[in-house]
Amino acid sequence: MTAWPDLPADHPFGPHNLPYGAFLTRDAAQPRLGVRIGDEVLDLPAALHATGADTGGAWAGALQEPTLNRLLELGHTAWTGAREWVTGLFAEEADPAVVRPHLLPLGQVEMVLPFHPADYVDFYASEHHATNVGRIFRPDQAALTPNWKHLPIGYHGRSSTIVVSGTDVVRPSGQRKPKDAEVPTFGPSQRLDIEAELGFLVGGPTTVGERVSVDDAADHLFGVMLFNDWSARDLQAWEYVPLGPFLGKSFASSVGAWVVPMAALEHARTELPTQDPEPLDYLRGDGSGLFGLDIEMEVRLNGTVVSRPPYREMYWSPAQMLAHMTVNGAALSAADVFASGTVSGDEKAERGSFLELSWSGQEPMQLEDGSERSFLEDGDTVTITGWAPGPDGSRIGLGEVTGTIRPATELG
Amino acid sequence: MTAWPDLPADHPFGPHNLPYGAFLTRDAAQPRLGVRIGDEVLDLPAALHATGADTGGAWAGALQEPTLNRLLELGHTAWTGAREWVTGLFAEEADPAVVRPHLLPLGQVEMVLPFHPADYVDFYASEHHATNVGRIFRPDQAALTPNWKHLPIGYHGRSSTIVVSGTDVVRPSGQRKPKDAEVPTFGPSQRLDIEAELGFLVGGPTTVGERVSVDDAADHLFGVMLFNDWSARDLQAWEYVPLGPFLGKSFASSVGAWVVPMAALEHARTELPTQDPEPLDYLRGDGSGLFGLDIEMEVRLNGTVVSRPPYREMYWSPAQMLAHMTVNGAALSAADVFASGTVSGDEKAERGSFLELSWSGQEPMQLEDGSERSFLEDGDTVTITGWAPGPDGSRIGLGEVTGTIRPATELG
Repeated sequence: MTAWPDLPADHPFGPHNLPYGAFLTRDAAQPRLGVRIGDEVLDLPAALHATGADTGGAWAGALQEPTLNRLLELGHTAWTGAREWVTGLFAEEADPAVVRPHLLPLGQVEMVLPFHPADYVDFYASEHHATNVGRIFRPDQAALTPNWKHLPIGYHGRSSTIVVSGTDVVRPSGQRKPKDAEVPTFGPSQRLDIEAELGFLVGGPTTVGERVSVDDAADHLFGVMLFNDWSARDLQAWEYVPLGPFLGKSFASSVGAWVVPMAALEHARTELPTQDPEPLDYLRGDGSGLFGLDIEMEVRLNGTVVSRPPYREMYWSPAQMLAHMTVNGAALSAADVFASGTVSGDEKAERGSFLELSWSGQEPMQLEDGSERSFLEDGDTVTITGWAPGPDGSRIGLGEVTGTIRPATELG
Repeated sequence: MTAWPDLPADHPFGPHNLPYGAFLTRDAAQPRLGVRIGDEVLDLPAALHATGADTGGAWAGALQEPTLNRLLELGHTAWTGAREWVTGLFAEEADPAVVRPHLLPLGQVEMVLPFHPADYVDFYASEHHATNVGRIFRPDQAALTPNWKHLPIGYHGRSSTIVVSGTDVVRPSGQRKPKDAEVPTFGPSQRLDIEAELGFLVGGPTTVGERVSVDDAADHLFGVMLFNDWSARDLQAWEYVPLGPFLGKSFASSVGAWVVPMAALEHARTELPTQDPEPLDYLRGDGSGLFGLDIEMEVRLNGTVVSRPPYREMYWSPAQMLAHMTVNGAALSAADVFASGTVSGDEKAERGSFLELSWSGQEPMQLEDGSERSFLEDGDTVTITGWAPGPDGSRIGLGEVTGTIRPATELG
């Protein structure tokens, strides 16, 4: 397939990718959905009209909404229909003249959150990450808890503070108690951290009591986004026993502006690491539903690459996370989001959090400007990028998720 | 104030209460908002038109929506306006002939969930409950974790499985590992439990980075509902370390159909138990924001009263929960819900969960039909009721939250 936008074969946003986003233009009151090609965004409502597509059809109607929620509600068949149409616009036989007027340079638009999140769950699916955190937080116990290899551990997070890439993050304040202190004190977090993750955008609804099997999970997986689960380690350490993380996480979670459809990641599918012990039946199915993703990630702090987390090393499959999440009959909603948990590889330079990279502050990171960091300072910018292999030697870019730390606000 | 509906002075749904709900009639496609008086529901859209109220005004428009979300968005001034109007309809000087045609017997309507929940947080605010659970789950450690008296511990739950009173609850399945087993097994929960709580319905939005102080919390507290946080103790025990409860809770949380406005609970405000050690400033404010609620609750299992949890003994104020939840800058949304956590009193007969009442199965409860229970069997019905003191010796009923256990569904 030779597509008409003249892009290098390895461009991360070539015609095999076509991720979805939502954008504002200067004169628009409402966001519109778009698809990225090269460094431009295709205005989907305009393209639907220009190409004479059946704009009354289900997916065509959904693409004229300000968010992806309606498309997510329609389910897998609609997703395929929409993608086939979009892909066709850039096929060799397509007429560039029809669509070209509706491509806007990225510099002329503002990307916004392309969905209204329903429930948000964060998993903990990297064995390397869970082992590192266990060693740091609970040095007197086994690094992995006894349940870790039997189920994908997860917890619910705050959906209202999911923000789009580029949104500044205000340093959170809260209670923390240093180990040698008698009582907790209140103040801005001193150990503000990142977690480099992937986020998965889910289609629904399903009904309460219905399970999504691991074999059918892919029918509910719409796409993938880069995800930064900002974490205030000092708040988290003091609050998380016994009911889990709360304010240490709920102040902000940043997602990339581009949702890469699962259909664009067919060539990124890879085998999972060996799961030993073998998980229970409901987490295996007939085996056809299990997959890993060969996605490379890169974490930059003020421009210095501080880590390259390899998603392919994640222990649990996204399909297992989704099947586990619903095995008790919990319903899915359109625009449910679940994140993988921090992606950390086996090597030190592959760890997806500063907690691990600096080993809780004992081994600060060296930046190219000569400064050192263990945790984030005000003004610091973290940018996570990612890409996957596509067909014919192409690359599928995930874009970036970036955020800059603003000083804590005064209590008032 | 003598109101025109001829109700006994201590009727739990007299003219001082007027809780909000949403109802369906046989011929209606969409729910409508209503207010309960006696055993009838006032059709609010119909009453607005009949009384010639300014239906174009903000709160009047919100009362014509199918959920309370728009009213919650408008904030405290609108809530007061709406309540003053509704209260006036039942005042001595009002003309019953105008409104009476729009009262529907409860038997003729179906109550539905009166809001679309945004984020849901469950707290853990009863010292008696937290102490009991600590003794049962972690017998080798101090009953209360070191943070318990310094902050209201909470965690996010699943908002999409909040269901209205009367909805059956399917027994959840999942992983559990008995203490003496080597590996976990999959199956229906064997330790299905309740948690008798109050739920608080919150108005918003606030912006990310904005805090709600403990002194201002009441401006964001719209009302109170009975709440049953169904809990699968075996699933919970195996999964909850280190990130907290997940599938042991996410299958269903039931709320009462009636939201009692905070304004109806002025006479139920009471002092908190002594908080020692004194909490940090942000949890105290100038003191004016702190309050407890003198609400009596009753838990019936298949008709037998098994507990009478006293809300007045709760350690943390709802205002402290709300202030804590936002102190890190987390935004509130319209129809955020937070629940108090299990309400347990000091006495055995005041415990709000079967885990505590049966002391983890060691002391089964005796029911009036001669049977015993430690945890729920299929077909069991749990009903929680509640009431508070109103003005002039009146009572403010919270209604009930009820649910019946249906057998687990087969995996497939």
